Amino acid sequence: MQKYIFELEMKVRDYECDLQGIVNNANYQHYIEHTRHEFLCAAGLSFARLHEEGIDPVVARISMAFKAPLRSGDVFISRLALQKEGIKYIFLQDIYRKADGRLSLRASVETVCLIGGRLAGCPLFDETFRPYLPS
Amino acid sequence: MQKYIFELEMKVRDYECDLQGIVNNANYQHYIEHTRHEFLCAAGLSFARLHEEGIDPVVARISMAFKAPLRSGDVFISRLALQKEGIKYIFLQDIYRKADGRLSLRASVETVCLIGGRLAGCPLFDETFRPYLPS
Amino acid sequence: MQKYIFELEMKVRDYECDLQGIVNNANYQHYIEHTRHEFLCAAGLSFARLHEEGIDPVVARISMAFKAPLRSGDVFISRLALQKEGIKYIFLQDIYRKADGRLSLRASVETVCLIGGRLAGCPLFDETFRPYLPS
Amino acid sequence: MQKYIFELEMKVRDYECDLQGIVNNANYQHYIEHTRHEFLCAAGLSFARLHEEGIDPVVARISMAFKAPLRSGDVFISRLALQKEGIKYIFLQDIYRKADGRLSLRASVETVCLIGGRLAGCPLFDETFRPYLPS
Repeated sequence: MQKYIFELEMKVRDYECDLQGIVNNANYQHYIEHTRHEFLCAAGLSFARLHEEGIDPVVARISMAFKAPLRSGDVFISRLALQKEGIKYIFLQDIYRKADGRLSLRASVETVCLIGGRLAGCPLFDETFRPYLPS
Repeated sequence: MQKYIFELEMKVRDYECDLQGIVNNANYQHYIEHTRHEFLCAAGLSFARLHEEGIDPVVARISMAFKAPLRSGDVFISRLALQKEGIKYIFLQDIYRKADGRLSLRASVETVCLIGGRLAGCPLFDETFRPYLPS
Repeated sequence: MQKYIFELEMKVRDYECDLQGIVNNANYQHYIEHTRHEFLCAAGLSFARLHEEGIDPVVARISMAFKAPLRSGDVFISRLALQKEGIKYIFLQDIYRKADGRLSLRASVETVCLIGGRLAGCPLFDETFRPYLPS
Repeated sequence: MQKYIFELEMKVRDYECDLQGIVNNANYQHYIEHTRHEFLCAAGLSFARLHEEGIDPVVARISMAFKAPLRSGDVFISRLALQKEGIKYIFLQDIYRKADGRLSLRASVETVCLIGGRLAGCPLFDETFRPYLPS
């Protein structure tokens, strides 16, 4: 069982829908990126400031299962759990449609950290994320 | 003086910023489109449903003055006023940075209505928007 | 070994880069979607027309490994191979930076077909894609 | 009469179309931004490199008249003319559908230059753009 540590409510914006009348797949990546950055923010870190300081978290691998499409007008909850594997942080990210609680997207996002452009462990993240990791 | 009839609070999402570190100009068009559609929604109309019924409000002309760039982390208020000129509805749309109330964008958006693909006056809009027009 | 059956050359557009100065991850989904649709087009099918006829190919699952970021000015080649598994078509999609041939993205995209909104085998695709499948 | 000094051919990508089945308006801003940057590139300048050197051309004002919507599959030509007014460079940018030469978008884009974050005349641009200005 996932233990979510953060969630964010959003609403579909019509420009995110494509000619099939459903949210274009690439926008789910936007939704879950924004969720991670808002989680960072809640944990006291700013993605933009980190970049200015030479610390760039980057996505190494992402996998997404599209379960039920979101549509114009849908409100949804984007939830996030966190795991650590070696120097990777893995975000388990699920999106639920608010009206009926139905799972819309299940994603797993592996992130690593570049410090001054080089792959590295990141003590700042280790310290910041420790309270959020499963014990 | 503008008399705003609707407002929506949003927060910059990092993917909306470009390599200059500021919100890419095209995203302001997204912000104000979403604001118009949420206004429609508050007035009881759905942009997607209108499309299914063959009623397509479209933008004929837009003009935007970029006053102060929004950046990562900025919260902003998108405000809207409405005027009618002939068969056109004109949305005056301003975006203010929340932290200091500074004007970020001033825009004017002329919209017309296509019914079954043809330019036409739209009685549904006339009725719906009447309470929002300046008297 | 992959056997690519289609390729498309594109160039990074600056608005696709984010505040880290590299192409935002979600845009790779755009790149590979556009590549699939251009492949469809080369095979004689139009994604938009299919939708009008009630045939909607949709992505069920996607997995992407980000190998080397693309940057402003980069030209890249997006290549595609195709496999069939049951009623799923699986697109293996790789993006190479043109200047040095370096692999930038490796993706696998599982698609299924909705006909009139319901999951179904798609004889039109079976026939169209047959010449492109590994024998 | 406009005298175009640069043009770029592009093709609509399906993800640029919205639920009305036409290119979402904000994407025209993307098209004309990309055209300006490719013009810069042809003139020997890189938008990304300029940013690294502390020179940021920014859009102060944009006005767009949407004449005929582009749709899935459309190929279009984005053309550009240039004028100088004081410290502003004004790009007159038109988009034509290739199939029938029909005008799709007419835009005017006023740009100014920030050097080290401050509004300034830009000798580099003055020199680079001189050959492209009307005499």
